[in-house]
Amino acid sequence: MSHERRPSFLAEHVDRLAGTHLRDLLKDAARGKRLRHRLGPILLDLSRQKLDLEALDALGAHVEASGWQAARDAMFAGAPINTSENRAVLHTALRASGSSLPSPAPQDALKEIQQTLTRIDALVKAVELGDATAFGVAPGITDIVNIGIGGSDLGPRLAVRALTPYHVPGLRSHFLTNVDGQSAYELMHQLDPRRTLVIVVSKTFTTQETLLNGNVMRDWISRAYNGDKAAVSRHFLAVSANVAEVEKWGVPAAQVYPMWDFVGGRFSLWSAVGLSLALSIGSYNFHELLRGAALVDDHFRTAPWSENLPVLLSLVEYWNRNAQGRGSRAVVPYADLLTDLTSYLQQLEMESLGKQVTPQGQPVAQSTSAVVWGSVGTNAQHAYFQALHQGTDVVPLEFIGVVKPAHDLSANHDALLSNLLAQAAALALGKTLDEALAEATSGTEEERRVLAAQRTFPGDRPSTVMMLDALTPESLGALIALYEQKVFMLGHLWGINAFDQWGVELGKAIARQILPSLEEGGAGHASSFDSATQALIDVIHERRIAK
Amino acid sequence: MSHERRPSFLAEHVDRLAGTHLRDLLKDAARGKRLRHRLGPILLDLSRQKLDLEALDALGAHVEASGWQAARDAMFAGAPINTSENRAVLHTALRASGSSLPSPAPQDALKEIQQTLTRIDALVKAVELGDATAFGVAPGITDIVNIGIGGSDLGPRLAVRALTPYHVPGLRSHFLTNVDGQSAYELMHQLDPRRTLVIVVSKTFTTQETLLNGNVMRDWISRAYNGDKAAVSRHFLAVSANVAEVEKWGVPAAQVYPMWDFVGGRFSLWSAVGLSLALSIGSYNFHELLRGAALVDDHFRTAPWSENLPVLLSLVEYWNRNAQGRGSRAVVPYADLLTDLTSYLQQLEMESLGKQVTPQGQPVAQSTSAVVWGSVGTNAQHAYFQALHQGTDVVPLEFIGVVKPAHDLSANHDALLSNLLAQAAALALGKTLDEALAEATSGTEEERRVLAAQRTFPGDRPSTVMMLDALTPESLGALIALYEQKVFMLGHLWGINAFDQWGVELGKAIARQILPSLEEGGAGHASSFDSATQALIDVIHERRIAK
Repeated sequence: MSHERRPSFLAEHVDRLAGTHLRDLLKDAARGKRLRHRLGPILLDLSRQKLDLEALDALGAHVEASGWQAARDAMFAGAPINTSENRAVLHTALRASGSSLPSPAPQDALKEIQQTLTRIDALVKAVELGDATAFGVAPGITDIVNIGIGGSDLGPRLAVRALTPYHVPGLRSHFLTNVDGQSAYELMHQLDPRRTLVIVVSKTFTTQETLLNGNVMRDWISRAYNGDKAAVSRHFLAVSANVAEVEKWGVPAAQVYPMWDFVGGRFSLWSAVGLSLALSIGSYNFHELLRGAALVDDHFRTAPWSENLPVLLSLVEYWNRNAQGRGSRAVVPYADLLTDLTSYLQQLEMESLGKQVTPQGQPVAQSTSAVVWGSVGTNAQHAYFQALHQGTDVVPLEFIGVVKPAHDLSANHDALLSNLLAQAAALALGKTLDEALAEATSGTEEERRVLAAQRTFPGDRPSTVMMLDALTPESLGALIALYEQKVFMLGHLWGINAFDQWGVELGKAIARQILPSLEEGGAGHASSFDSATQALIDVIHERRIAK
Repeated sequence: MSHERRPSFLAEHVDRLAGTHLRDLLKDAARGKRLRHRLGPILLDLSRQKLDLEALDALGAHVEASGWQAARDAMFAGAPINTSENRAVLHTALRASGSSLPSPAPQDALKEIQQTLTRIDALVKAVELGDATAFGVAPGITDIVNIGIGGSDLGPRLAVRALTPYHVPGLRSHFLTNVDGQSAYELMHQLDPRRTLVIVVSKTFTTQETLLNGNVMRDWISRAYNGDKAAVSRHFLAVSANVAEVEKWGVPAAQVYPMWDFVGGRFSLWSAVGLSLALSIGSYNFHELLRGAALVDDHFRTAPWSENLPVLLSLVEYWNRNAQGRGSRAVVPYADLLTDLTSYLQQLEMESLGKQVTPQGQPVAQSTSAVVWGSVGTNAQHAYFQALHQGTDVVPLEFIGVVKPAHDLSANHDALLSNLLAQAAALALGKTLDEALAEATSGTEEERRVLAAQRTFPGDRPSTVMMLDALTPESLGALIALYEQKVFMLGHLWGINAFDQWGVELGKAIARQILPSLEEGGAGHASSFDSATQALIDVIHERRIAK
């Protein structure tokens, strides 16, 4: 981060804290109380962040002066806050049914949402009972394949895996995402086309990857029915805003579930995009997920900044990113069931906040989205934690733990949690040269000094811990909504539109130009490309025909 | 990166290039030639890195003055270059059998390696033929479970997945890694204990995660045999340097395959740690993997710096990290089969190079390991590429493509490759405000300006492309060895020991202290912990007993 991007009102706090080690900050019990909060099934512990109450209050004064409540209320009410596309942002209305506050969203949106939920509930129940022919679905389905990419994939994928202990028996879920044919190829060898239900998810129904994979699966099922189109169509549902295009492709309109302009892809798990999830965990649990998210929405709408979890999360990130200049944040869930959380958050955060221009077309004043990365612990400890403890850069971490597991292997679970706690402690506390010297008992004095230097840990490295009581549909819904609202707040603090994504367009346009020159008999030597692109096209043509 | 860490000899080159866009650098054909190189099945394209030939030659002069050849030769010859542990670093000797140069490694090491390879070959052949009772293995094995973590997991996991098209029929591979009991729980519900062969991989045979999971699997298999220890032992092999401890645990010495002090965990795929891989792809293909790695070793030992791929990769990374101050690098393979490459490289690079002290115990002069992150494309395009194109930070990328796929879905594959090429081009070229303005055809002038500003791409963002002819055992071996030798070179350039990992120790020690206070009936209120740790222990106890 270039230093001119550091907000000046925080400079004094950074400087004041530069000489104070986290070891010492942690001794302040009053500070600990202000930085630990519970919301339903989630405990949020920010006490290992490198700030004191004075810095926290400076951040609080900043957010209070920013008009965040009005911005928040505008979102919930359906104002067109996605200005570059002139759209409302109403993913919160998708879970209004679980809220204990009246929704300020437009009535027509709420009505459409409710109608869709009712349709999903009925379909899910029918599939569970084994006869969804009334919904256009072939009998005897054992496997569901969700075809989608980005927001049409990451949410359902995360939740289906996370909620494995809640799966309806007899129904397996699969996710076909990448245009790489390898995954489609493997799925076709693994599944029975007559027992497979494919859900094609694409708002525009023009997504290249999704349609290519849809075509592959349609051909495969078609071969099983000797090309009988009516039979094939019973193996497909679609989730799309483009009903005409879906019908043309071969799925009857009655089998299309809606997507709306007022819900962005990366916020759409709660809509019909979650259909594969609803089928996987059943209606009751899908509504529990919505209820968990609504719990966070209600809290976000009512709690003051100093007790508001999404606001606090956004302020801590603003502090790390803009005051301390950290370029990335590692998300490390200590739960194999949350394996896909990091990739979900990469989209949610980096696609929302990876911008450098304001809605007014001006350069942003500060650095925006950090790189989000990570993977499950303890695996991560045995991979890259070396660099987090002893590398030259400070990387803030986010640990996520689960108190009660879904299995009874308690020795494993105790070991898992003790590692989570230990990593957060080790990163904060470190080990001084003197402590390391005291452990180096053999060798000459110089040998002891050299070894101790390599076994010293600077510590003072910040982390957040979130502890879920258990991994349930409710707590998962709450966890995801917490991140969504944090993203909203960061967009507000940085003054950017968190709800568009123009940055994905250029690559798509260039890919369309390149594709013809790669196809069989394609004009490999169209001279319109830059030299590096042309050289790689040549390599592909040359090596393709090599033995 | 703090600026004082920028090597002064590169400052003039950074400054000179600051005003030159990659668009313009790409017009220099002579430059393109110097930055594109082929080594066997791999084409390496560095032409989209933000340097000109003058900067490249400055880097070349720096590495030539550094004594890199002597350092390299010392490694191959088995000198104790891992000084903090006084060990040789001989993973290259593991593939000496595939080399066309004589190995300078110590004869006793080469002999032990050869004997082990012969043992592995014989075992693999016997399992493939369906009768490995002579090797202590029960008949009728259909599933292999590799239990290991870090270096005992990531290499075999990567290669088993990457080489799916080479799998021996009738034998499935599984990887049990995390101490989270969920994975063990699921595996036990999925597999037949009488048809499962478990390979327990741990150099010391004291790794907490591996032993806990080993115990769970041993209990499970034991139940299937009513506790008959001899029967149970036929379902286990071990890979370890601690034969006594393995025997005590229940695996006969004849079923233990060796690990050596001269091979670090993250460099051990080529040893018996690759046993699950060898079983999965067969002996011939395992040797092809070694041969691919040896191809890179031979090249690394003989090519001048300007044509030496690992050296060039290390110089480009030195440039991005230390001259340009980039904090992370994204690795994006356009191949679902390479899904696990990023996590493999996270360990290889960040555990090797995430250090801040030299072997002499002095602070390093420059920033060391960047954060390594990423995931497969095109999925990544629909997740975080927004931030890579339009975010405030520049993240160098590494694209990996495969010319010939292992399936015949050519429309998918053409689309996949066109996207890879397009992303590299879009990141480098960008889109100017004028170009964006020309596309904004409706609205007032102010509306057009605002929208165009949001649809502008700065470009000038560096990337590397590696293109494999096909994904084969040979090309995978070469690819991994390329990264290994790059890591060696970066360790040399930064003056750090790339072969120890003291940074993983502190967390382990603290976890051992915390564990008793989490166990059932544990002393939850031992007062020896910091306040944050104690608060979380309290939360765990309190929520565990909540309904």
